[in-house]
Amino acid sequence: MFLMTEIMNGRDLSAKVKMNLKKSVEGLKKVGVTPTLAVILVGDDEASKVYVRNKHRAAQKIGINTIDETMPADSKQEDVIKMIEKYNNDPDVHGILVQMPLPKHIDEKAIIDTIDPKKDVDGSHPENMGRLFMNEPQALPCTPRGIMELLKEYDIDVRGQEVVIVGRSNLVGRPLAALMINSSATVTVAHSVTHDLQSVTKKADILVAAVGKAKMFNKDYIKEGAVVIDVGINRTAEGKLCGDVDAKDVMGKAAFLTPVPGGVGPMTVAMLMKQTVEFAERSVANV
Amino acid sequence: MFLMTEIMNGRDLSAKVKMNLKKSVEGLKKVGVTPTLAVILVGDDEASKVYVRNKHRAAQKIGINTIDETMPADSKQEDVIKMIEKYNNDPDVHGILVQMPLPKHIDEKAIIDTIDPKKDVDGSHPENMGRLFMNEPQALPCTPRGIMELLKEYDIDVRGQEVVIVGRSNLVGRPLAALMINSSATVTVAHSVTHDLQSVTKKADILVAAVGKAKMFNKDYIKEGAVVIDVGINRTAEGKLCGDVDAKDVMGKAAFLTPVPGGVGPMTVAMLMKQTVEFAERSVANV
Repeated sequence: MFLMTEIMNGRDLSAKVKMNLKKSVEGLKKVGVTPTLAVILVGDDEASKVYVRNKHRAAQKIGINTIDETMPADSKQEDVIKMIEKYNNDPDVHGILVQMPLPKHIDEKAIIDTIDPKKDVDGSHPENMGRLFMNEPQALPCTPRGIMELLKEYDIDVRGQEVVIVGRSNLVGRPLAALMINSSATVTVAHSVTHDLQSVTKKADILVAAVGKAKMFNKDYIKEGAVVIDVGINRTAEGKLCGDVDAKDVMGKAAFLTPVPGGVGPMTVAMLMKQTVEFAERSVANV
Repeated sequence: MFLMTEIMNGRDLSAKVKMNLKKSVEGLKKVGVTPTLAVILVGDDEASKVYVRNKHRAAQKIGINTIDETMPADSKQEDVIKMIEKYNNDPDVHGILVQMPLPKHIDEKAIIDTIDPKKDVDGSHPENMGRLFMNEPQALPCTPRGIMELLKEYDIDVRGQEVVIVGRSNLVGRPLAALMINSSATVTVAHSVTHDLQSVTKKADILVAAVGKAKMFNKDYIKEGAVVIDVGINRTAEGKLCGDVDAKDVMGKAAFLTPVPGGVGPMTVAMLMKQTVEFAERSVANV
């Protein structure tokens, strides 16, 4: 059997989300609130600079105000903490994002712990992670949330479905597992130690690949008609971007597939913007 | 084939843990620290009173000091919060436990949020739940921890094993999933919405039943040679205690089984004591 594999377009959905956010921002500005996101970048890692620039640009297009705090690579941990505290205490700032990774002499956990959970747009503070796992979320990690939005857009209901997530990172695998459990999926978390990974992934109605290995998941890993979500961003030997899924190979066997680039990636930035606007809305509600 | 099913004795292990704790407590007392647990009970629910009494007794046997705060059923939420804050601020109190359930007019979440995460012996504060899910635990929910200790005692290594947990409560299913992922098991969380539950549970090398339905899991739900952990505490029509597993039926098919009573139950209290002593030890280390 040959299935028509539907490509899940993250760029289009991301554009739609951002357009809706633009309207919300206009509404907020009418009541005197400009959603504001402080982005803290420490050092001059080239990839991080690109990510940060993309976030500023996306925010500007929506009407979100951004604050660009670029700190030198040799900044002391206590200075980064002081910078975060400054924005924690600033009522005009609704979201704080610290771009990861940080220089090695800085303890990432101590930095994340410093962010006010109510301004933690990335949902990575332990309190927010805990509330997510207790099914009372207050802030959601952007990539997992983007995946849920993509599934919703394509009318894929996860309730009662077998979801297999390969990868157990704090940014993707673990919080996505929580979101899926909260949505009543039957959720399996697999990883590098899993025995016979193929037999596990082949049960999946929805397979999420988040391991960071180029084209690892070919058609032998998937069930016919599965929804395949590719979170990987890798480069081939020729320098081309590719995901964790061997897209060519699974075409005709998967029912749905997110492309790389243009699938999950654009959703992550859109969800960051959405969280910032939601925090600004909550600040109005709490006045 | 007929297997000899080994019964995992939670009473014996619990006694062993408590004996070791007694020695730790003696050591702490020599440096002037008496581990102290404040137990807050609101109202006069009979089952809760029994649970609280058992905790006080277990503590006393080990040498842990307990404070018994029994508050009337019509206590205001703010009074319960004030009581918790009193012990949060008391350096001589190392652990605070609020017995659940609370009377309906009190918001359990607001109460749990009030407990200082560093004194949260039950590991149920969102911050502690988050740290557990991020694999940097600071306090562990007692029942899941007790299950991990039982498995360890019987030399059952969960690494790479297929673990299926049926039930997704904040007290058992979710935190146990986190502990199992942290220990590199391949973890599936199933629940009442799962389609074809038997086909899911039959894959399990280790099956954890935590649904609260008397004798639901008979031998049709388990793989030959599986380890079966029964978290249920139910009563039969005749008033006898029984678990979620049909113990008679799975004997000869399971390789290991926790009995009810005498399996997971006694481990929960032992782990509560262990957490209290650990918090007291940390208070010494931090002076």
